[in-house]
Amino acid sequence: MSEKRRITLKDIARELGISVSTASRALNAYPGISEETIKRVKDFAEKHHYVPNSIAVNFRKNKTQTIGMIVPELVHPFFSSVISGAINRANKAGYRVLISQTDEKQENEILACNSMIGGNVDGLLISIANETVDLNHIQEFINEGKPVIQFDKFSEKLHTPKVITDDFESAYKAVKHLIDQGYRKIAHINGLIAVQNSIDRFKGYRQALTDHGLEFHEAWVPHCKEISEEEGYDFASQLMNLPNPPDAIFCITDLVALGVMNYLKTAGIRVPEQVGVMGFSNWKISEVMSPSLSTVEQHGFKMGEKSVGILLHLLNENSQGNHEIYKIETDLIIRESTSN
Amino acid sequence: MSEKRRITLKDIARELGISVSTASRALNAYPGISEETIKRVKDFAEKHHYVPNSIAVNFRKNKTQTIGMIVPELVHPFFSSVISGAINRANKAGYRVLISQTDEKQENEILACNSMIGGNVDGLLISIANETVDLNHIQEFINEGKPVIQFDKFSEKLHTPKVITDDFESAYKAVKHLIDQGYRKIAHINGLIAVQNSIDRFKGYRQALTDHGLEFHEAWVPHCKEISEEEGYDFASQLMNLPNPPDAIFCITDLVALGVMNYLKTAGIRVPEQVGVMGFSNWKISEVMSPSLSTVEQHGFKMGEKSVGILLHLLNENSQGNHEIYKIETDLIIRESTSN
Repeated sequence: MSEKRRITLKDIARELGISVSTASRALNAYPGISEETIKRVKDFAEKHHYVPNSIAVNFRKNKTQTIGMIVPELVHPFFSSVISGAINRANKAGYRVLISQTDEKQENEILACNSMIGGNVDGLLISIANETVDLNHIQEFINEGKPVIQFDKFSEKLHTPKVITDDFESAYKAVKHLIDQGYRKIAHINGLIAVQNSIDRFKGYRQALTDHGLEFHEAWVPHCKEISEEEGYDFASQLMNLPNPPDAIFCITDLVALGVMNYLKTAGIRVPEQVGVMGFSNWKISEVMSPSLSTVEQHGFKMGEKSVGILLHLLNENSQGNHEIYKIETDLIIRESTSN
Repeated sequence: MSEKRRITLKDIARELGISVSTASRALNAYPGISEETIKRVKDFAEKHHYVPNSIAVNFRKNKTQTIGMIVPELVHPFFSSVISGAINRANKAGYRVLISQTDEKQENEILACNSMIGGNVDGLLISIANETVDLNHIQEFINEGKPVIQFDKFSEKLHTPKVITDDFESAYKAVKHLIDQGYRKIAHINGLIAVQNSIDRFKGYRQALTDHGLEFHEAWVPHCKEISEEEGYDFASQLMNLPNPPDAIFCITDLVALGVMNYLKTAGIRVPEQVGVMGFSNWKISEVMSPSLSTVEQHGFKMGEKSVGILLHLLNENSQGNHEIYKIETDLIIRESTSN
């Protein structure tokens, strides 16, 4: 293991008997520097593992080769997959990814945006926090002329490209599957009313009921605030104790479905015979639950790759893009909780 | 929503009729600038939401306020918890976290280190990839004079502070619990032979057997390469078909334990009556499995916070620290798979 300190541009210049400026221009193969000098400098730099001080390089180029990424939650199988896909794609292109999390709070999102604004990153990927109402902090980023890509949870009010799950279509497919299995009274435990993916999943659910002439009741669509296992448990109890209880429950995520399954088990209601249960996300827990949970695979890794791909393209074109929406296809995963 | 472009130092200078240099020195409250000018400049800057171009600021200070973090895998409940804790602690101190993942491969780790070396980050947190043999890329970082903290998977050869799970103690506690429950023939599905946390968990297991006078057999300690569910399944099959099969299996992670439970279910072997199963990590799946899995809670979030806390302290002291080892305590979580 070498104990030598890292060599600098100054060292190269001194060793080769040239000026620092010549060494620097040779490394960048500027015009006006002889082929021979370029070769001498590059060979020497390579031999001694010279790494340019990128702060200086970035100052000159005003580029950071860094992408900012803001997510609501990191300890979350879906978001960690998206981040993983984003990092993989970015690293392949020589970019690095700076990550912040908001815990679904607007104040944290503002702090995260402020720390990335003002030349710290070349562009931004953001999935908006559930509690965010005011969008100024993101708009300011856009006003800086930098590309911003919204992914998963977005706002229509921000004019940026968006990479999302096809929530309407996915919810429609999931509910259609329940109908095909013979369920007729289908409830939907939805998410926060103002969040776009909740809205779209609700619309897909509603459309599937309408297309198949099935009954719809407001009371069959409770809204989670936390998207938690506990809410799933409590809403399942509430739904099953209605005068007209459902015979299937389509849940906004697998975690909520886990709570639903736990309630049904406690209440002695058999799944899938008496009640069918469908999740959303295909987390590892859905495979492990007993009975195993039918769900929708969201392909978070692909969403991360795609988001970075679009951002790199925009950086290359020196553009902020249009308001295109890119939809990532989902797959229906059929397991025991709906196959009777 | 304002559509104005972000104001620059030049704008401030022009608007207030002072030089750019005076404006800059006023913002930083340098000596030789009158109180009045400082107030005028700061008020104006605040009113117009001036953000300094941090690339320029960093160039001057040679500080990035950024911490590099290299993990083997992001889509992993333990590492995503560590990252989450690290980001939370760093953001509180005004630092940002740049993340790379290695997929357990040395070549990716070298690329990640190279992209962070040379002034891109102020310090590094790293959990070494399973496949890493040569440590030069990390040593070079240390040679740059920057603080490096190893967490979770580390090498004794690198002289840096380390933040780790107390693997010996945790494994000892887990095996002691199996013994207290009446199990006497305890197998251990271990990890890669050369990885420190595998070695320490094995030592804890071995010591607990010795202290209680229990039999030990090499054949009872198979080693995973991938740490996968499939390996758990296959090793359980192999162990239960030995002439002298074990009556309990302590697994290197919950994912491996899941494979073990699946094999035992398939083979009609009752858990915990015939065989006890113990995991490690306390992932969500351990709670969801049926029967639920006894395991060891690792507190990844705390590990991330602690690692950043030490790094910030070293940055403050302008030091690389000593070779201290900080151990994060674990908790035994007792569930159905060991309570008969």
